[in-house]
Amino acid sequence: MELNHTHDASVKSWLASANETGTDFPVQNLPFGVFRRAGSDEAFRGGVAIGDQIVDLAAAARAGVFEGLPQLAAQACSDTALNGFLAMGPVAWRALRHALFAALRHDAEARVVGLLQGCLLPQAEAEHSVPTRIANYTDFYTSIHHARNVGRVIRPDDPLTPNFQWLPIAYHGRASSVVVSGTPFRRPMGQALPPGAQAPVYGPCARLDFELELGFYIGPGNALGQPIPLDKAEDHIFGVSLLNDWSARDHQFWEMAPLGPFLGKNFCTSVSPWIVTMEALAPYRVPFAHPADEPQPLPYLDGAANRAHGGVDVQLEVRLETAQHRAQGVAPDRLTATSFRHQYWTLGQMVTQHTVGGCNLMTGDLLGTGTISGPTPPEAGAIVELSRGGTVAIDLPGTGEQRRFLEDGDNVILRGWCEKPGAARIGFGECRGEILPALAA
Amino acid sequence: MELNHTHDASVKSWLASANETGTDFPVQNLPFGVFRRAGSDEAFRGGVAIGDQIVDLAAAARAGVFEGLPQLAAQACSDTALNGFLAMGPVAWRALRHALFAALRHDAEARVVGLLQGCLLPQAEAEHSVPTRIANYTDFYTSIHHARNVGRVIRPDDPLTPNFQWLPIAYHGRASSVVVSGTPFRRPMGQALPPGAQAPVYGPCARLDFELELGFYIGPGNALGQPIPLDKAEDHIFGVSLLNDWSARDHQFWEMAPLGPFLGKNFCTSVSPWIVTMEALAPYRVPFAHPADEPQPLPYLDGAANRAHGGVDVQLEVRLETAQHRAQGVAPDRLTATSFRHQYWTLGQMVTQHTVGGCNLMTGDLLGTGTISGPTPPEAGAIVELSRGGTVAIDLPGTGEQRRFLEDGDNVILRGWCEKPGAARIGFGECRGEILPALAA
Repeated sequence: MELNHTHDASVKSWLASANETGTDFPVQNLPFGVFRRAGSDEAFRGGVAIGDQIVDLAAAARAGVFEGLPQLAAQACSDTALNGFLAMGPVAWRALRHALFAALRHDAEARVVGLLQGCLLPQAEAEHSVPTRIANYTDFYTSIHHARNVGRVIRPDDPLTPNFQWLPIAYHGRASSVVVSGTPFRRPMGQALPPGAQAPVYGPCARLDFELELGFYIGPGNALGQPIPLDKAEDHIFGVSLLNDWSARDHQFWEMAPLGPFLGKNFCTSVSPWIVTMEALAPYRVPFAHPADEPQPLPYLDGAANRAHGGVDVQLEVRLETAQHRAQGVAPDRLTATSFRHQYWTLGQMVTQHTVGGCNLMTGDLLGTGTISGPTPPEAGAIVELSRGGTVAIDLPGTGEQRRFLEDGDNVILRGWCEKPGAARIGFGECRGEILPALAA
Repeated sequence: MELNHTHDASVKSWLASANETGTDFPVQNLPFGVFRRAGSDEAFRGGVAIGDQIVDLAAAARAGVFEGLPQLAAQACSDTALNGFLAMGPVAWRALRHALFAALRHDAEARVVGLLQGCLLPQAEAEHSVPTRIANYTDFYTSIHHARNVGRVIRPDDPLTPNFQWLPIAYHGRASSVVVSGTPFRRPMGQALPPGAQAPVYGPCARLDFELELGFYIGPGNALGQPIPLDKAEDHIFGVSLLNDWSARDHQFWEMAPLGPFLGKNFCTSVSPWIVTMEALAPYRVPFAHPADEPQPLPYLDGAANRAHGGVDVQLEVRLETAQHRAQGVAPDRLTATSFRHQYWTLGQMVTQHTVGGCNLMTGDLLGTGTISGPTPPEAGAIVELSRGGTVAIDLPGTGEQRRFLEDGDNVILRGWCEKPGAARIGFGECRGEILPALAA
């Protein structure tokens, strides 16, 4: 994707908070979400994050901020989910982004500034819902470091399955239990096989884990039976968010042979409220290649553009805030930090693989990248890796606590951002979720 | 579920075709589907099969056939999918069934008969769509005979995984590619590892298979985090249909370690147009028990009602109609015949297991039972079992052809019915699908 004037890092906004150092949401970002005033019974509607504010796109469409295609796109964002806007495709997405950029830059028309100032809500006063009506949720498994780390726990002799380097592995997830950041959930009940036991036991999950992932949302879908070739794949991707694929490892490892994870994953999946568009990520695209001594992608998963800039350098971290952190007023401890650039397959390859057999993607579908673990142990994207299957305690310096798995009251906070000299910081905001105690058995 | 006057096998209908021996749709059945006049641009709407006709419920609601709760239920069936009706729950389902039974029986009021006669469309003149908007599709794996048969192909030393006898195994399927009976689909492209090869190849599926299953549809859902106990599970099940979980075995077996089937299944799943209600199946409920020398269900999967009548004796068969059968005008050959009564877990146990960790079911969700294979080899519900992984050719006496897997032009036809002395035959109709050639690679 080529750079254009909306990527110019020197452009400031008339909204001061959008120009602050370290903001996730400068005028070059403009991520989309769905919001309403917190605690109200207003209808949810589409908005765009800028500095510490949200542009209410429904209000802006009514106020006459836009015209032409941007106006149609903003009207589509007035719905309770972004599906209508996502279905419009890249030309409309770009048109609205460029119109917002023009309206929010420091030298925007005074008339437009006046209108937009009436369409802002502070992010601190908003609540969110999942940004699309998710018809289908798919989770990939595309970090070779995660696959090796987890594989060692389950299959010490053979951690990496032979297919991993040939195709982006995936499984179908549960769409109904995808929730937006900030939604607490109960520790799940279920069956697990205790070490050495002959029969399983029923009880609360004893090995609750997070998974650090990115999620990406599908714009226009494809017809059943019509695969999406790699060179068209990104035309179908609207943008990227943070995703936490909460996992009940004891339930998962007992149930998953031979058909994969089910109850171990389907009790909750959290997504961040904001979707960062592919256009906003353009400055952070990086070359993609498999190591020369490893299998090279088959032709249908290979292409010049994918090699040149198929990757995305998104920096990621996970922090843990326990009940003790909150009681003591201590900042959350960082558990891990890594980047998506280490991933073994690209977003485009995931779309092409998903559809190669004819499966139809639908507008608003959510695809997860799978856990993002970097090459060194501290870069692992799940506790089961950091604690080596629960055998090593993880220190939380802030409170002096330790963790092998997650405990009730723990709040896991994912953050992501792109940053480099000469480009504007593109932040993803946060994806957080707190664990409530299990229902009594 | 107790029997009532709608199960009385001696009651006839004023519609002669509903009284014919061997009809799937006597007045005691009354399955629900969604239809319109074939080839028209009419809106799809709900209907009920009776004999060789369909009662147009939208027309009947307008005509004033019903009043009270049955009228509200019929109005809910006027939508393009049955979700609104399914959300109303068992009291409404029963009310509409009983009102239809009263209106269709031989001694119905003349006024009602006159009105209903104006609301009939011959089934031969109708086309169908998938009966609900399926938000989530889950496929179980609950035939121990299927698990052993397929396990022997993949894991000869250890065919049955240790969890099988402890919980109904399941995986999330693909909701977007569920199609209604009669919809053809393309042979999928994908990766497979040829026997003895070191690297996979990309090409059309070489081991295309069917899976004989029942599907069942969820009425009222449950809130995230609120499991459905076994003694309430059937309150959430509207009814049962036929389901063919088409499978690309070569793609599936290469991709499925460690996260389960994905492209091997998600190119197409076919369902029959008619959903037979749980109330219609009441005469065919049978006791359920695991063999005494096998693990007994944990308490949350056990209950007196489930033991007394958790099973359903649905007889099932699969027929194959090849291009040669059509060219020669020969009847399809029967590949297999079995019954759902052999299944290792009940529909109620599947619902309870699905939600035990808090996963929320949604109205209109589709759950598959997994392949239904009986205890003897000819009762297997998939070709991979019948042909022992493709090593034994299956004879088709009608044309003299043979099959190890499915070929282009093959039309697979599932049928199901309940039948016993003293009870009306309850038929499921057909679920069929034809295989089109793969797109050129």
